[in-house]
Amino acid sequence: MGGKVLVINAGSSSMKWSLFSKNDFSIVASGIAERVGIEGSFLKINFEGSEIKKEIKLNDHKAAAIETLKLWQKHKIVKKINEVELIGFRVVHGGEYFNDSIKIDSKVIELIGECSKFAPLHNPGALQAINAMLDILPNAKMSATFDTAFHTTIPSINSQYGINREFAQKWGIKKYGMHGISHKFITLKLQEILNKNSVNFVNLHIGNGASLCAVKDSKSFDTSMGFTPLAGIMMGTRSGDIDPAIHEYATEVAGMSLKEFTNLLNKNSGLLGVSGISSDMRDLVKRYKENDENAIFTLNLYAQKIVDYLANYINKVGKKIDALVFTAGIGENSSFIRELVIEKLDLPNLNIELDQNKNNISPSEIKDYLLISSNNSQIPVYVIRTNEELLIAQDAVKLYE
Amino acid sequence: MGGKVLVINAGSSSMKWSLFSKNDFSIVASGIAERVGIEGSFLKINFEGSEIKKEIKLNDHKAAAIETLKLWQKHKIVKKINEVELIGFRVVHGGEYFNDSIKIDSKVIELIGECSKFAPLHNPGALQAINAMLDILPNAKMSATFDTAFHTTIPSINSQYGINREFAQKWGIKKYGMHGISHKFITLKLQEILNKNSVNFVNLHIGNGASLCAVKDSKSFDTSMGFTPLAGIMMGTRSGDIDPAIHEYATEVAGMSLKEFTNLLNKNSGLLGVSGISSDMRDLVKRYKENDENAIFTLNLYAQKIVDYLANYINKVGKKIDALVFTAGIGENSSFIRELVIEKLDLPNLNIELDQNKNNISPSEIKDYLLISSNNSQIPVYVIRTNEELLIAQDAVKLYE
Repeated sequence: MGGKVLVINAGSSSMKWSLFSKNDFSIVASGIAERVGIEGSFLKINFEGSEIKKEIKLNDHKAAAIETLKLWQKHKIVKKINEVELIGFRVVHGGEYFNDSIKIDSKVIELIGECSKFAPLHNPGALQAINAMLDILPNAKMSATFDTAFHTTIPSINSQYGINREFAQKWGIKKYGMHGISHKFITLKLQEILNKNSVNFVNLHIGNGASLCAVKDSKSFDTSMGFTPLAGIMMGTRSGDIDPAIHEYATEVAGMSLKEFTNLLNKNSGLLGVSGISSDMRDLVKRYKENDENAIFTLNLYAQKIVDYLANYINKVGKKIDALVFTAGIGENSSFIRELVIEKLDLPNLNIELDQNKNNISPSEIKDYLLISSNNSQIPVYVIRTNEELLIAQDAVKLYE
Repeated sequence: MGGKVLVINAGSSSMKWSLFSKNDFSIVASGIAERVGIEGSFLKINFEGSEIKKEIKLNDHKAAAIETLKLWQKHKIVKKINEVELIGFRVVHGGEYFNDSIKIDSKVIELIGECSKFAPLHNPGALQAINAMLDILPNAKMSATFDTAFHTTIPSINSQYGINREFAQKWGIKKYGMHGISHKFITLKLQEILNKNSVNFVNLHIGNGASLCAVKDSKSFDTSMGFTPLAGIMMGTRSGDIDPAIHEYATEVAGMSLKEFTNLLNKNSGLLGVSGISSDMRDLVKRYKENDENAIFTLNLYAQKIVDYLANYINKVGKKIDALVFTAGIGENSSFIRELVIEKLDLPNLNIELDQNKNNISPSEIKDYLLISSNNSQIPVYVIRTNEELLIAQDAVKLYE
């Protein structure tokens, strides 16, 4: 058995991982530690088609890592732990410090910590995972890949708000964007598909969290998430953009605290809060097809908010546009939402049209990607499967080559 | 001398008015009472080409009205006060109650009061002015014209936020829009210009406050202002849209109160707060032409935020689009901003182009309107002068015909 690359995506109370074979980047195993530091923690591993689950007390990320490695050895997922040559960490926020993946050293760790103020729920989890692995596998080569890095190319005309500039600069308030690893992965994949060194397109990363990215000359030019992942389009539980004066009204007239209101926007808005049914697209599409008015309204609202950005980003990418791409959980799997979005496009002199048969192909039959637009469509539309873990693994290998 | 129509636009501490001749809607005089209820109050009247100014203590809107009428008589602007047959009031917020101008009665007054929660700085001023005129000119016929009325046709798919729906409905949180009187005036004017009963276009009302409106079949279909006038594009001192999670960061990390932060967004952001120079477009264009980097950045940011909505609204109006229209202070007078906006449009298969000579015609030479696009432009672009007071006067007359 050859060398392995471990990819770790840690949150404040979870640690998701994928183990790749270094020579061909095939998946060896994947898993998650859930409820780390909370009552009821457990480990789950997917290996050779079966799922292993173990309920076990996990006080912290280090305990989660140690117990995971023990399970690996028990189930012979690796022969020896030191097969893990490289570890790539997903880090949500790199602020303005990191415009690409980077080898981890003490300075990098310090700067990731500094960016915790922008991602207080995420960066500290990544740091705990990094420190745990430094203890447990001190000889592995480690790298960090940032969700924000791909967006550091966004020009200030698109990243700056209309807020007082002195204030914004003092406190680092600007659009950082998210899902950069996925937007970059899709950019590289589209280059490959179109056989071009440089591509111009709009990427619709639509999962439970969701963002659009206007990619110009293979670089992020604008994106719908902002200073935080709350901005942009409506999501599973997040509202997306709203009038910024509603906060004061909510506190003064509706009698909430700002914390409660922001929490409502993050956790109980979006698909869940508008429908009152579910944040899960599958539930809502089912209800839509049963003519549930609430689901019909919610999904049309959802699609409209996507199209509001899509029209804007088609203009931003401009006349050189190569494609529109749907990706991530909903983008890859919901032909229904793709159709709802595309049918709301009505730009003058521009026909963008799906091929119904191709769009309705079962997701299980889409391997890497699929062209779903009709021959008449003046912009091709693709579904492309994203793979953030793979990009993190590849970047880890590249950095230490 | 025949009957007159008085139009009153009152704020919390000001009362602006225009006096029209009822038979041909020509302006007889116009003026303002400023700093009502504040130290240093004064009256100003424009009449027959000269300006009359009088410093006088004005405790409230009633005092302002009484003193204004005295000045009218002194300067023979009217022979008798009862020449004022009709009074049309501009009311900023009509909530969901008013979809058109309406005769004022006690029920209307009560409902305008109810909508004060949505416009706490504006509706109370209008009510004070209405009550003052009911006392002073009890025989005049009175009507209210609302800034929100034109937008009551916006479908819920465009007016509802991605916020929890139960919460939003309970507290009346949705997009009401503003500048409806101007957007409606321009709609009627464009019908006249194009000789059509129904028009489809994007109206760019760009003044110190600013909003875009997607007009479909002569009805408002979407608009960039929202629950309040803070939303949408960047303005003279307002930020426009921002990530709705910044508020919590501003209070928790930057140490402001929510009130201070909202105030920063309303009063010290936009052109003023980004440039640090001025909220006045003329100052900024002057600096831009002197190659001041700050002014160059600020105006490009400003134009980009307009174009972000414009591209979205071109899609919303759709393939039937008849025109783009620039109006209001900046829209009518700044060829520079119009050019900066149009040059940022790059929609595939669509050429929208100004005729440089026409665009640069001096504003003083534009009477009612001007076509400023080139013959090659696939969508015509107009400058149309707005006149909100005239629409209010006309509506007052129509209501009592």
